[in-house]
Amino acid sequence: MNAKPVSRFPVPELKDLPADIRERIEAVQQKTGFVPNVFLALAHRPAEWRAFVAYHDALMEKEPGAGCTLTKAEREMIVVATSGANRCQYCVVAHGAILRIRAKDPLIADQVATNHRKADLTARQRAMLDFAMQVALESHSVDEPALEALRAHGLTVDDAWDIAAIAAFFAMSNRLANAASMRPNDEFYLMGRLPKAK
Amino acid sequence: MNAKPVSRFPVPELKDLPADIRERIEAVQQKTGFVPNVFLALAHRPAEWRAFVAYHDALMEKEPGAGCTLTKAEREMIVVATSGANRCQYCVVAHGAILRIRAKDPLIADQVATNHRKADLTARQRAMLDFAMQVALESHSVDEPALEALRAHGLTVDDAWDIAAIAAFFAMSNRLANAASMRPNDEFYLMGRLPKAK
Amino acid sequence: MNAKPVSRFPVPELKDLPADIRERIEAVQQKTGFVPNVFLALAHRPAEWRAFVAYHDALMEKEPGAGCTLTKAEREMIVVATSGANRCQYCVVAHGAILRIRAKDPLIADQVATNHRKADLTARQRAMLDFAMQVALESHSVDEPALEALRAHGLTVDDAWDIAAIAAFFAMSNRLANAASMRPNDEFYLMGRLPKAK
Amino acid sequence: MNAKPVSRFPVPELKDLPADIRERIEAVQQKTGFVPNVFLALAHRPAEWRAFVAYHDALMEKEPGAGCTLTKAEREMIVVATSGANRCQYCVVAHGAILRIRAKDPLIADQVATNHRKADLTARQRAMLDFAMQVALESHSVDEPALEALRAHGLTVDDAWDIAAIAAFFAMSNRLANAASMRPNDEFYLMGRLPKAK
Amino acid sequence: MNAKPVSRFPVPELKDLPADIRERIEAVQQKTGFVPNVFLALAHRPAEWRAFVAYHDALMEKEPGAGCTLTKAEREMIVVATSGANRCQYCVVAHGAILRIRAKDPLIADQVATNHRKADLTARQRAMLDFAMQVALESHSVDEPALEALRAHGLTVDDAWDIAAIAAFFAMSNRLANAASMRPNDEFYLMGRLPKAK
Amino acid sequence: MNAKPVSRFPVPELKDLPADIRERIEAVQQKTGFVPNVFLALAHRPAEWRAFVAYHDALMEKEPGAGCTLTKAEREMIVVATSGANRCQYCVVAHGAILRIRAKDPLIADQVATNHRKADLTARQRAMLDFAMQVALESHSVDEPALEALRAHGLTVDDAWDIAAIAAFFAMSNRLANAASMRPNDEFYLMGRLPKAK
Repeated sequence: MNAKPVSRFPVPELKDLPADIRERIEAVQQKTGFVPNVFLALAHRPAEWRAFVAYHDALMEKEPGAGCTLTKAEREMIVVATSGANRCQYCVVAHGAILRIRAKDPLIADQVATNHRKADLTARQRAMLDFAMQVALESHSVDEPALEALRAHGLTVDDAWDIAAIAAFFAMSNRLANAASMRPNDEFYLMGRLPKAK
Repeated sequence: MNAKPVSRFPVPELKDLPADIRERIEAVQQKTGFVPNVFLALAHRPAEWRAFVAYHDALMEKEPGAGCTLTKAEREMIVVATSGANRCQYCVVAHGAILRIRAKDPLIADQVATNHRKADLTARQRAMLDFAMQVALESHSVDEPALEALRAHGLTVDDAWDIAAIAAFFAMSNRLANAASMRPNDEFYLMGRLPKAK
Repeated sequence: MNAKPVSRFPVPELKDLPADIRERIEAVQQKTGFVPNVFLALAHRPAEWRAFVAYHDALMEKEPGAGCTLTKAEREMIVVATSGANRCQYCVVAHGAILRIRAKDPLIADQVATNHRKADLTARQRAMLDFAMQVALESHSVDEPALEALRAHGLTVDDAWDIAAIAAFFAMSNRLANAASMRPNDEFYLMGRLPKAK
Repeated sequence: MNAKPVSRFPVPELKDLPADIRERIEAVQQKTGFVPNVFLALAHRPAEWRAFVAYHDALMEKEPGAGCTLTKAEREMIVVATSGANRCQYCVVAHGAILRIRAKDPLIADQVATNHRKADLTARQRAMLDFAMQVALESHSVDEPALEALRAHGLTVDDAWDIAAIAAFFAMSNRLANAASMRPNDEFYLMGRLPKAK
Repeated sequence: MNAKPVSRFPVPELKDLPADIRERIEAVQQKTGFVPNVFLALAHRPAEWRAFVAYHDALMEKEPGAGCTLTKAEREMIVVATSGANRCQYCVVAHGAILRIRAKDPLIADQVATNHRKADLTARQRAMLDFAMQVALESHSVDEPALEALRAHGLTVDDAWDIAAIAAFFAMSNRLANAASMRPNDEFYLMGRLPKAK
Repeated sequence: MNAKPVSRFPVPELKDLPADIRERIEAVQQKTGFVPNVFLALAHRPAEWRAFVAYHDALMEKEPGAGCTLTKAEREMIVVATSGANRCQYCVVAHGAILRIRAKDPLIADQVATNHRKADLTARQRAMLDFAMQVALESHSVDEPALEALRAHGLTVDDAWDIAAIAAFFAMSNRLANAASMRPNDEFYLMGRLPKAK
């Protein structure tokens, strides 16, 4: 059991939350086995909670199709790489777990979080993360050559938007989590590191 | 009339948008006299559009009260200061206009966008923007002393969250607008610069 | 009327200044309608004042001709772009006004001050500002490729010098104005924003 | 003899220069034994040459007195420290020589150019250079505490101006010299390194 | 089995190495169960290999005692924190494993690698890592206040040296590993993450 | 005589050192005429001293041959360039002296320490220092193009390792010297500046 505070801001009790938020959290808990702390840390602001979760799901729960070629695992790579650069403990640890699971690769998250240039990536994924890092770290310099580099690897206009939007959304999340000293659940650290059938 | 592109990504026609989005845009148009380009630039992604606008309104349209002391003008100061640091043309120009109007001050936006340290601010507003800039530019370093500095100027825990959340939300907006080369409407440049008596 | 201090350093009375300085200031006042604060903020040091103004005029009041192709408006673009990067309130506001007037464009100054990559520029002007920014921000890295990029856009050797010299001169001005907390006159904020014939 | 180019921009012959400039250069040559290359590298622009030299002399040739307490050697320390930070070969080498001579100290220039924190300085000189470096490298952050730190070491308002103005002037010089690849005369490297009695 | 290259530089066969190096590597292999890749990646340069390993052991294998208060786990914290800042995949992964084992804490390595400010540390460890990060990232600014901050937490003169020396040694290691694209063994990723009871 | 402290850490007496260290130091003294302070500043840690000196000699005392083409002078250039970037007084001054002697060039050290781009180098040496600076300042970005740039100038795989290893070793040395405020001997400042036969 972890007694360390989840956030430096107020964290409401699950039972005190609006029904829609409580139900959604309970669904996650049922599926994952625990409540990821971000759901609790944002809950003192229900309207913000709802927008955050809706935005997150629109970007992260999307399957490839119709001009969008990024897999869910690739979307998580963007999160982990940019969260590493922003030095966000919550997002590196929590999304590192999700990346390991979605990529079915126990090594990829630690590699991408530290230095995506040295990670086991395809050339297309490398181009994807180069662009994501530019958006995360110096978006004012994004210009035509950056978009051409994506096209050269077969990434579409919709992919370019997705990469930029995910990097941008986690620029927000990382700052919220850093400002709140949001603490990742202990469970995340080990998720996806062990072979499934043991 | 402005023929320069609004975004480097696809921009749908107003008539082709889902009804809820179109109605909201038309309401803004009626009130402001024109459609701010951000509403069009995000519209090719309706789910993201809805989450973005809901999140924006939750943070920016809130009146002071119940532990939250920031005025709407002060919220816009945070936007303009951090967007200046992120070198986001759309947000500096568009929210600069809104700041001038909400603060009833034709000078404040250009001051804050360039260097908040030299702007005509109260000590409390200076502390607010110092914290906002830390969240925008190096959120990994936020620690107790940063929050104590806010308390020393009478800013509440809810204010600290609001400042961080606004700086974080526009960390996202600035990156989206920079990646999309989003163009501010010409109308914004002059808004709030002339005495009201018209 | 604006009672805020013009500088954190001593500001002499116009009547106490050496005759040549006073006369020059009065000429500016007659032409512009007010005395730009920089003339007052530097006046406690007459020898420096004279050198500053002579240097400024040699660089900024030059018409195109004889190998120098930069227009006066383009010279002001260099000032505004580099002053934005140096976060100098005085120079962004005052030279922003001059740029709007010289370029007869109410939008260009705010664009260039925030991010010259997103401004309404010709390719030649973009190359001019790319070089100016390199001189302003990392002059130690200037090397042959930087000068070749200028030549590729038809900029001459004399233009290269002019761009570098203006970026260098305002590296100085920006630092003086920032150190002195020099305040731009309120009049500058609106200049060049309205159509001429009203 | 040194056949390497003095500048990447045109360098006129001494005989072709306007009389006042030629005479001044000849006077320096007579006193120093050679013509410092900066006088030649700027000479293709006589009006800029005159303003540059006048400004330089107003800041650097001033003796202590009437509220100004900086010695000429201390003024050169500011030049060498900030030019080191700006990585300007010409100014580090040429003003390093002048600093050694004016301070009668063969070690001080190399120390200050590399890291003023480790140089053999008084506490007052350390405060002087801390402020100079702030003006050189992040003038937008200069605020009251920086000026209080100077006062705490007995530095006057005029000293604060002098430090800022010298750091600012060499922000300009360094950028000009870097952009022009200005080459210091070979003679400077050894000046002031040997005991006088030869 | 891992077929990815261990280094972009030549990697000799174990059997071709000088006897002393081969024996040392075999001893490590016996103890750990595998040969950490760094031993192979450096082996094409036997003299450098010997100096590297001797230096490493002098700093990292030291038990507390006689004025040195850092534990072996704390020494690894310094490695992981600074290697994270230097974005060195090999050192973050390999020393992260050692840190987890030495600290008997499955969470600490990922925390420290991402942002030591948010890690589960004592105040003394936080001061230790603040100093290590200053040495790693801006050693030129180290001055008396930095050393006083260590003393305030009971860290000794020998501890200060140890922290600086470890941060410095891994400044070297990180650069070697980054330049060589040194690949951590797959085994490291999971080490120390599971409860001992096996 | 120089009474300034050699280091902020303990400096043992020569007579109290282990015999092997004392003998090596006395040999250097005999050859050079004085004991370089680094030998004394590291001596309170004999095991570290031995590893440091062995590592240093393996990298710096190597003659060209068998795939290694760097001269001893070129190795010192790497030291001086990267130590300048790291603002390390000890290494810039001491290795500047060695570079002047080994290159038989009284100017090269000051040039390289300030800005290697403006130094009197061959194209091959420029490529060598470009790579060294990348390893020193942002080793995480080293990738294939960096190594191709070396090959394009005839630098071998062994040269690439040597450049990286020297830049890495002095990343360590510079941090140690900066943290210890290590003071270069006065003798270094003038060495190699005067013609040999006087």
